[in-house]
Amino acid sequence: MRGLLGGKGANLAEMTQLQMPIPNGFTITTEACLTYLKERSEFSPDMKRQIEEALDDLQKKSGKTFGSTTSPLLVSVRSGAAISMPGMMDTILNLGLNDVTVQTVAKNSGNETFAYDCYRRLIQMFGDVVFEIDGAKFEKEIDKVKEATGKDNDAALDAQDWQGIIKEYKRIIKEEKGIEFPQEPKEQMYLAIEAVFSSWLNSRAKTYRRLNNIPDDLGTAVNIQEMVFGNLGDTSGTGVLFTRNPSTGEPGLFGEYLINAQGEDVVSGVRTPQPIRALENAMPGIYQQILGICDTLEHHYKDMQDIEFTIEAGKLFILQTRNGKRSPKASVKVAVDLVSEGIITKDEAVLRIEPNMIDQLLHPVFDSLALASATPLATGLPASPGAASGKICFTAEQAKKRSEAGEKVLLLRSETSPEDIEGMVVAEAVVTSRGGMTSHAAVVARGMGVCCVVGCEALKIDEHAWTVTIGDKVFTKDDDLSIDGTTGEIYAGVLPTQMATEETSLQEVLGWADKVAALKVKGNGETKRDILAALEFGAAGIGLARTEHMFFAEDRVLAMRKMILANNEEERKEPLRQLKVAQKGDFKEMFTAAGEKDITIRLLDPPLHEFLPHTEDEMAELSGATGMPLVLVEKRIEELQEMNPMMGHRGVRLAITFPDVCVMQTEAIIEAAVEVSQAKNIQIKPEIMIPLIGTAEELAFVKGYVQAAAERVFKEKGMTLEYHVGTMIEIPRACLIADEIAKEAEFFSFGTNDLTQMTFGYSRDDVWKFLPVYLKDKLLPADPFRTLDIKGVGQLMKVATEKGLAANPDLVVGVCGEVGGDPASIAYCVELGLDYVSCSPYRVPVARLAAAQATLKQKKAEAQASAR
Amino acid sequence: MRGLLGGKGANLAEMTQLQMPIPNGFTITTEACLTYLKERSEFSPDMKRQIEEALDDLQKKSGKTFGSTTSPLLVSVRSGAAISMPGMMDTILNLGLNDVTVQTVAKNSGNETFAYDCYRRLIQMFGDVVFEIDGAKFEKEIDKVKEATGKDNDAALDAQDWQGIIKEYKRIIKEEKGIEFPQEPKEQMYLAIEAVFSSWLNSRAKTYRRLNNIPDDLGTAVNIQEMVFGNLGDTSGTGVLFTRNPSTGEPGLFGEYLINAQGEDVVSGVRTPQPIRALENAMPGIYQQILGICDTLEHHYKDMQDIEFTIEAGKLFILQTRNGKRSPKASVKVAVDLVSEGIITKDEAVLRIEPNMIDQLLHPVFDSLALASATPLATGLPASPGAASGKICFTAEQAKKRSEAGEKVLLLRSETSPEDIEGMVVAEAVVTSRGGMTSHAAVVARGMGVCCVVGCEALKIDEHAWTVTIGDKVFTKDDDLSIDGTTGEIYAGVLPTQMATEETSLQEVLGWADKVAALKVKGNGETKRDILAALEFGAAGIGLARTEHMFFAEDRVLAMRKMILANNEEERKEPLRQLKVAQKGDFKEMFTAAGEKDITIRLLDPPLHEFLPHTEDEMAELSGATGMPLVLVEKRIEELQEMNPMMGHRGVRLAITFPDVCVMQTEAIIEAAVEVSQAKNIQIKPEIMIPLIGTAEELAFVKGYVQAAAERVFKEKGMTLEYHVGTMIEIPRACLIADEIAKEAEFFSFGTNDLTQMTFGYSRDDVWKFLPVYLKDKLLPADPFRTLDIKGVGQLMKVATEKGLAANPDLVVGVCGEVGGDPASIAYCVELGLDYVSCSPYRVPVARLAAAQATLKQKKAEAQASAR
Repeated sequence: MRGLLGGKGANLAEMTQLQMPIPNGFTITTEACLTYLKERSEFSPDMKRQIEEALDDLQKKSGKTFGSTTSPLLVSVRSGAAISMPGMMDTILNLGLNDVTVQTVAKNSGNETFAYDCYRRLIQMFGDVVFEIDGAKFEKEIDKVKEATGKDNDAALDAQDWQGIIKEYKRIIKEEKGIEFPQEPKEQMYLAIEAVFSSWLNSRAKTYRRLNNIPDDLGTAVNIQEMVFGNLGDTSGTGVLFTRNPSTGEPGLFGEYLINAQGEDVVSGVRTPQPIRALENAMPGIYQQILGICDTLEHHYKDMQDIEFTIEAGKLFILQTRNGKRSPKASVKVAVDLVSEGIITKDEAVLRIEPNMIDQLLHPVFDSLALASATPLATGLPASPGAASGKICFTAEQAKKRSEAGEKVLLLRSETSPEDIEGMVVAEAVVTSRGGMTSHAAVVARGMGVCCVVGCEALKIDEHAWTVTIGDKVFTKDDDLSIDGTTGEIYAGVLPTQMATEETSLQEVLGWADKVAALKVKGNGETKRDILAALEFGAAGIGLARTEHMFFAEDRVLAMRKMILANNEEERKEPLRQLKVAQKGDFKEMFTAAGEKDITIRLLDPPLHEFLPHTEDEMAELSGATGMPLVLVEKRIEELQEMNPMMGHRGVRLAITFPDVCVMQTEAIIEAAVEVSQAKNIQIKPEIMIPLIGTAEELAFVKGYVQAAAERVFKEKGMTLEYHVGTMIEIPRACLIADEIAKEAEFFSFGTNDLTQMTFGYSRDDVWKFLPVYLKDKLLPADPFRTLDIKGVGQLMKVATEKGLAANPDLVVGVCGEVGGDPASIAYCVELGLDYVSCSPYRVPVARLAAAQATLKQKKAEAQASAR
Repeated sequence: MRGLLGGKGANLAEMTQLQMPIPNGFTITTEACLTYLKERSEFSPDMKRQIEEALDDLQKKSGKTFGSTTSPLLVSVRSGAAISMPGMMDTILNLGLNDVTVQTVAKNSGNETFAYDCYRRLIQMFGDVVFEIDGAKFEKEIDKVKEATGKDNDAALDAQDWQGIIKEYKRIIKEEKGIEFPQEPKEQMYLAIEAVFSSWLNSRAKTYRRLNNIPDDLGTAVNIQEMVFGNLGDTSGTGVLFTRNPSTGEPGLFGEYLINAQGEDVVSGVRTPQPIRALENAMPGIYQQILGICDTLEHHYKDMQDIEFTIEAGKLFILQTRNGKRSPKASVKVAVDLVSEGIITKDEAVLRIEPNMIDQLLHPVFDSLALASATPLATGLPASPGAASGKICFTAEQAKKRSEAGEKVLLLRSETSPEDIEGMVVAEAVVTSRGGMTSHAAVVARGMGVCCVVGCEALKIDEHAWTVTIGDKVFTKDDDLSIDGTTGEIYAGVLPTQMATEETSLQEVLGWADKVAALKVKGNGETKRDILAALEFGAAGIGLARTEHMFFAEDRVLAMRKMILANNEEERKEPLRQLKVAQKGDFKEMFTAAGEKDITIRLLDPPLHEFLPHTEDEMAELSGATGMPLVLVEKRIEELQEMNPMMGHRGVRLAITFPDVCVMQTEAIIEAAVEVSQAKNIQIKPEIMIPLIGTAEELAFVKGYVQAAAERVFKEKGMTLEYHVGTMIEIPRACLIADEIAKEAEFFSFGTNDLTQMTFGYSRDDVWKFLPVYLKDKLLPADPFRTLDIKGVGQLMKVATEKGLAANPDLVVGVCGEVGGDPASIAYCVELGLDYVSCSPYRVPVARLAAAQATLKQKKAEAQASAR
């Protein structure tokens, strides 16, 4: 009944039904609020009558009465909309106190200071939320007294001090509002209720509703509850607890309490609270009662609870219960334990874990104690999670050399380019001062599972002097830094790390997930390390193995450059022969690592100039190595420059203008597959993927070369094997004519990175110039490179999937772009009925879980729809 | 009956029905061909019988007999498929000649040389096409005789020479085929018929049919006709004529003839033919007969005819008639005249003119005589038609200065950029050594109607030394060149030009076209010159006025640069104020020029770095002018560089990150519109167009600023006016969510240039690296930047138009991209039901005609569909 009672009221009602010992009270419904607002802010006689009846009932149950000089009723008044909302009036405590009842409370509690502190709090909260008087005015009075008495914190103030402050508070109200602070408890109550109702219409709440698409006609409920106090002596106390350890997920109560204290004393740290287990000895009856309550609540809410309680004179009150926040590790452990305890099903466990949390489980984190005492030097964007320390390196070459010499190194660059790959591979962490979450450094590091922080503008990197200045500190190559890829923070020196993993529980949940998921999860990777990592993380295969990263290796880039500089097919022959030897070796390693699991190998994709040198020295070196005059080398490099390389001479366009390159790659793939199949006596079925297809004719053209090359190899080797030829779908036009393309393709793999670039006309390298403004001003709901733009890019994917399958029902359709590891995007892929997603190895577990959740939610929605 | 008789046979049959005097003959149908091929290359008895009957009939009609020693029948055998096809056997003449009949012909004609020449031709053609003997073998024998006799051309050879050659020809046939050349005319005929039939299945014909989607089961017909000779004495002759002047379109016969000659004598130029009018005196009866025939044929075919005729011994024979090829000028003139003569309707006239021809009518051409004697130095791509000469300038500045000094100048650059605009405006022609038909130079020059040749790689331009080397010749700034933008040819020196225009007829046809066309044609332009040109060419308004070209002007670029370098809104104020004054002036000029015709003004579109200096000197200058330290200027310029500027921070993205710029532009537009409206007492309704929209939120956001600015101006001026806010649709995503965008927009204008770039993922600046290969290998049917890609880009336009109109039925939809002037693309726009296309001023007449043709064709197709 959240709609009628609000979130808080519904929760209290539920606990009441569970016969939890909660403070007596009643809830005024949202309907009442709406009626009040409609009737020009007047309580109708009927409404007033109902409130009076509820109040009578409360007075009877509690044995206390408003304004009584022996046993005065004190209540809290809290708002409670169906959806919690900043800007709404929140809470007034201690309502019912006045100049008379305060004395009774002082006497009953034996604690004058407590009584007057309660009273001044009432006046202060009342002044603030009912009379809308600037809170600073009240705080100033406290400061004055502290100054005058030389007491340095609120806790040191005594009854006399508070009495003086109360006098000043009353004066403020009189001055600001021209009326006395109301002494009549019922008047206090009605004013408080009206304030809650009216706050529904204040401008902050209205704005919040507009921005979050919350309807204006919901209204808010009001909860009125008897006050309970934990500071009425040694049989009183207060505490907070989790029903399980929120950090590790281990079963057993976890929490703290204080005897003779109020809730805020536990939090403020003035007194050191006791661990909850100590209550077993101190108040064994209460402790047993709590154990029982925890069990009931866990079974009722089917989850670990976060509970606030107060013991008033030996009597336990539960003030609040809610599902407890927990660490990723605990999240998994709790879900698995709840299954084995029979509280939830496996499907529920799968749905219970936030997929993105898993990411953190798979990387080391800094020791939390060490972290608590360290101050970050700077904060960048958290591009790839993990925690690592090492010596600063300013170039990839430096990183490689020092790493080979046994040092732990970090790679610090303004931004990275494909040439930095070798340095990134050996670095503990990669840091850049420029670029966003989808910059080269970010994408590659995430792909490799290397900790990475990007766009940390506070770093002033001098790549010539080999220094980095952060604030007023200068660091050199001999300094260590510690990088937190999960928060984006950078620290000086070496911080100790620990692993966050809780392997067995996680494997268990992921196993359940795989049984449920309607699509397979593959990993992207081309090195042995990546492939093994992906498979270890449960990938069903390799959905994207790029073939260009390996060309940047020192021993190959020269052959690559010679190939590019060649003037004709004849001159390309020798460098291509060298590259083929190298590529075949790579492919054999890949096939050996993956065994019979699918590997989808993408033919050469990036524009050729990416492989060419940029500096004069390198050009001179290349001129020497090739015997080509320097001017010609420079000219050729200039010719290969492009205005918009992303939309230039790359992908299949290279295969069409230089078919010999695609032939070389095909031969290397098929030869490697045949040789490894023979050596290991297994059946490898390579999948050859042509990138950047925009017309069916392109695919047919290149497929012709691929098939001819494969046939040649089969003939030479005296053996054939099954292989498939498919295409990336990453150009909008390819989606629009997917029916034509599907007739030539055995599989489609959506390259959502490029597809998003072209569909929006956003260059991923340049988008940081305006995307932050777009996100801030809500012109876009999310970064479309991280979360699929379902409306636009998703629409094209839908068209392509439908047209593709209509034309070729055997077509396999998947995704291998960046969003393949994003849960919201995976949900859409499930909706489209895709066969697989492929993401970076470290995202595979996240994706497996997200796929299962999406499938479960889809099934539920379908069941609901068919029930209707 | 083309299907049954083939094109040639049907034509002959038609002329027969018109009682034209054509040589007697008969046609063997395509059905006969198919039967023959099906029955394993055997003539069926029935077929043979019919051929014999037809031959008998021919012998009767002609009074000649095969093999007769007094009056031998000679015939031609020609193939004639429904669709003419290279690779098919073509023609055998003089069939019926043999060792005996050749003597009779020699005697009857009194010309032995003629007779033996005919005979050797028969043997040569027969050897070539029936026996498939390499033609070079025959030609070699003629060469041998010429060498031996010292005669230097075929015409000099006499009967004896031919007799010797005939002997050798017969020997060749015997050697190659092992048989004698057949002496029996009927055997000759059957062999010839079989050769025609069989050639239907030869590999060249098959390939041609496959490439052109011509079915294989059509077959070919065979036409057999009596030979007629124009060289049988002074009452014989031959000639070719057009029924009107094919160069000017003027009425009256136009052509040439020769007495006592064969057709090829007219063409070969050995004898000088007489103008056709001379025939009126020479053979008045024949001339009158020809006049009557021309009239009949023109009325029958409803077009100017190109006729071949022969007079054999005082008897006229029409050998062929076909619609005559003609110059653009004649094309228009003939169409208009045919209407006034009542031969065709106005709609037919509109359909009769090839729209692209008109382009040539609107530009000067080189004098044809001068051209005939000039040799081009080099040939580039014909980017913008016209002909012009001038002194060579190597920079825009040079061009401007020398032009101001009264010189006629050409601008020669490796490639142009927006900074060259001022040089392009003053140049007679623009030439680049790099770039394609849609490079900056090409697009801008076409837009301005300036003659332009691009991608002329033969030019080695040294921009430092101010020389251009073409082949082995070096030209300096003091040399003149002549540029033909219609052919792409470049000549040394100054060639005289002439105008090709035939104004009144063209205006008449275009007037008819406008009455018919289902969409309006607007022009693109932002200068007074462009706007006036567009309106003069009949544009219904200005569909695209860019607002950035004017920022490159010398007196403005500094303010623009200051604005860009500013760190915040405050610093941008002063440069923006200066720019506003300038822009308002521009807009007033534009509104004044266009009057009440619509102008659609596009807000700032290109990336900001295009406006910044590139050289050290300019940066230093800018640093001086702004007081900003040089290092900071350099840094800011570097910051603004983009990897893929086409997909970077431009278009609406600028308006969102710098709303003050869009506000400035709006104020300038509205103030200018109000002031010109008041001054001229007219109603200007500006259309403000936001470029590069990808989300509805962007448009709503910017529209908010535009409307607020407009309201402010209205208040200040105490006057309001109607204005419209719309958007470019040039991002694929915009098409996909056009329903959302249409709710915010009053009009859509497809920017097909960008839309094509994004849909294909082709950077227009870089596409020349692979597009030529794509076109060569037929991976694309056409350059999609010149002719709309209907399948892909067109599909997006269809989606956008449908979604847009469904969401907002009042939406006006048009095109302002490059394809707006392309006839095939305009036809698709008509199909989509768009409201207008907008193209460069010089293309407006082309587009008007194309729009009318598309509408007429659509109506016809609809009428046919509803008739079914």
